[in-house]
Amino acid sequence: MKRIILMMALAAMCCISATAQEKLFNSANVQSPVVNPDGTVTFNLFAPKAVKVEVTGDFLPPRTIEVPGRGMVDAPGVAALTEGSGGVWTYTTGKLAPELYSYTFNIDGMTGVKDPANIYVNRDIVSFTNIFIVSEQKGDKGDLYRVNEVPHGNLSKVWYNSPTLKMQRRMTIYTPPGYDKGGKYPVLYLLHGAGGDENAWSELGRAAQILDNLIATGKAKPMIVVMPNGNPNCQAAPGEWSWGMYTPGFGNSGTGPKEPAVATIPASFMDIVNYVDANYRTVKKREGRAVCGLSMGGGHTFAISLTYPKTFDYYGLFSAGLHLSTGSRNQSFAEQIKNDPDFAQQSARLFASKPKLYWMGMGKTDFLYQSTVDLRNYWDSKGYKYEYVETDGGHIWRNWRIYLTMFAQKIFK
Amino acid sequence: MKRIILMMALAAMCCISATAQEKLFNSANVQSPVVNPDGTVTFNLFAPKAVKVEVTGDFLPPRTIEVPGRGMVDAPGVAALTEGSGGVWTYTTGKLAPELYSYTFNIDGMTGVKDPANIYVNRDIVSFTNIFIVSEQKGDKGDLYRVNEVPHGNLSKVWYNSPTLKMQRRMTIYTPPGYDKGGKYPVLYLLHGAGGDENAWSELGRAAQILDNLIATGKAKPMIVVMPNGNPNCQAAPGEWSWGMYTPGFGNSGTGPKEPAVATIPASFMDIVNYVDANYRTVKKREGRAVCGLSMGGGHTFAISLTYPKTFDYYGLFSAGLHLSTGSRNQSFAEQIKNDPDFAQQSARLFASKPKLYWMGMGKTDFLYQSTVDLRNYWDSKGYKYEYVETDGGHIWRNWRIYLTMFAQKIFK
Repeated sequence: MKRIILMMALAAMCCISATAQEKLFNSANVQSPVVNPDGTVTFNLFAPKAVKVEVTGDFLPPRTIEVPGRGMVDAPGVAALTEGSGGVWTYTTGKLAPELYSYTFNIDGMTGVKDPANIYVNRDIVSFTNIFIVSEQKGDKGDLYRVNEVPHGNLSKVWYNSPTLKMQRRMTIYTPPGYDKGGKYPVLYLLHGAGGDENAWSELGRAAQILDNLIATGKAKPMIVVMPNGNPNCQAAPGEWSWGMYTPGFGNSGTGPKEPAVATIPASFMDIVNYVDANYRTVKKREGRAVCGLSMGGGHTFAISLTYPKTFDYYGLFSAGLHLSTGSRNQSFAEQIKNDPDFAQQSARLFASKPKLYWMGMGKTDFLYQSTVDLRNYWDSKGYKYEYVETDGGHIWRNWRIYLTMFAQKIFK
Repeated sequence: MKRIILMMALAAMCCISATAQEKLFNSANVQSPVVNPDGTVTFNLFAPKAVKVEVTGDFLPPRTIEVPGRGMVDAPGVAALTEGSGGVWTYTTGKLAPELYSYTFNIDGMTGVKDPANIYVNRDIVSFTNIFIVSEQKGDKGDLYRVNEVPHGNLSKVWYNSPTLKMQRRMTIYTPPGYDKGGKYPVLYLLHGAGGDENAWSELGRAAQILDNLIATGKAKPMIVVMPNGNPNCQAAPGEWSWGMYTPGFGNSGTGPKEPAVATIPASFMDIVNYVDANYRTVKKREGRAVCGLSMGGGHTFAISLTYPKTFDYYGLFSAGLHLSTGSRNQSFAEQIKNDPDFAQQSARLFASKPKLYWMGMGKTDFLYQSTVDLRNYWDSKGYKYEYVETDGGHIWRNWRIYLTMFAQKIFK
């Protein structure tokens, strides 16, 4: 056996495709981004004929832009790169706090240009951004979001049958380190927002990294995390099912299937719970089940909590999109609560069942802020017990990663 | 329960982040690429201030470029886009044959610019390219590579312990449709090339789509497919382990860990087989095991076949990078064979064990062509039985997808 040793260096020399090789030589001298020892970050872009180059990202002070139908909204800030020698443009930030950051370049009128020197990207609906992580010490946010030298859980793309929606559908399932050794595990159902899919929480949300790191330090219990697809008209993420390589959209934009006007999320959701309980070693009791979600997924969690008050013991609403079926788009959530004939009874039934945790997180500048205020006011007036956390910022993944980190430490204990 | 119906359209309206929304409105009017009814494909790019825009991709006639240390090599062709109204540049191809194609744009001296209207990308080491699929009819190559309305297997990222390499390592495992219903399955070990990782075959290679489609039509047996990481100095793909978000390289380029001069691939490979046999319902016999790989992975397959002649019954060498440890870089493979004191005996032992299939695929213009000729000449002189397939083109993923499609239909039957 010892005779058959491959000389790796030689093998490497001879086995690269021409395309990849061309790229390797072209970009050999540009590293970007560079996290400097003083905590600043330098971007380098080779663009020898460009006239104007900017970087836009969430590490810059936000600006306000106008979006049709929404008025003025926060958007990432912009900074100019300056041209140095050899056609390489450069910008260095101030010292950045520990975090996972996103950015793209604007070059001569083109927006959203990816950094060719950085292979790390996230997709948010139709937008790709490059990402990088800044961390100063163990346990800070950057450290929680990166892959550390700790035991890792497995991440699987799992197809199941949905009798309710009458289709095969795909979900992402995290099994914790040690799952292959046996034992039973509680399950967290983790729901994405509108425009998202079953890949959102594992990619944008860094769910596997957060869970690996919290479990390794004993801050969270080992648990299975199920990340389903919350779009009842889709089997899976764009390009991952038979609709083909469509442009994902929002509401009725894009080239994918159009959303139906209404959908019975809670009913089809139990198809998922039943599949997971049948195919994984789960704690098949209320105290072994948690559900949480961001934005639309927070709305789904809210609906699930009212529909199945004895199935889950832990609920998390992250920047929730709240709406009642009897309400209209012109009504505040307070008015919807007031006019709905069943909400009072459903709420009473939910809290009479004594869930172990009803948790809500919301950003101070989130455009959905008021609807959660309305819900809290109503539940406060009834004396129902819940936990509430308010953070800086708006309707952004940075907040949702924080909420998952907080919520995961509070459940199954 | 019926009362809690979410109005999806409304939920969608309110739950999008500002960044994503800005992007949605900016790019709303540009669709790219568009596969036209006549089989041509149109690229559209919004670049209002650009002076020169080209598309480069593998659907264009290849050109020849000079690469340092390699001389002249094939590279994808280039075509010019023309500027139309509203700052949108356009190019339409001729009619394209069914295939999965790759492309990027060159804009005013910047190369490798991704199409902002196309969310579908593949990463090949440090190069991202956009992709699209052309298919004319059921069963053609485009159809084989896309996701069809057939039962789907699951794809998992699985961490295992390697006693030989003394580290936790990650692999990608495909379990076929129906695996969750029980039964035992044969296993195909599918190895990547130099610069690749455990994601290469499932992403660039479309392995899950090819297997789903071949199994659905009865052309391949249901099988587990294990795609390990063949870099003994890495735990997992770039960004997926504790080395962090490094720039992957080739040999000693990039910012990742440097490759050791030699590595005992065959020994650590059995750690993988042992883990899979212990944790999956496998056919734990020679007739239930196949191994194949591309380029460096073809070299690994070759080494494994000589080292463990009774462990596998099916071997596949795809554009293999062949080398013997006693050989030098200046020697042809024929000279290495001639000078190696053990190769004759190892070959004799391998074929005396009567493997059910020893299969080789090679492209006519592959720069590794001659080494496989040398191996075939030697084995022909001994009367050893193998199968050999020659295709057009060189050292490219297009060939490796074809070889997987062929090989998968020949094993476990």
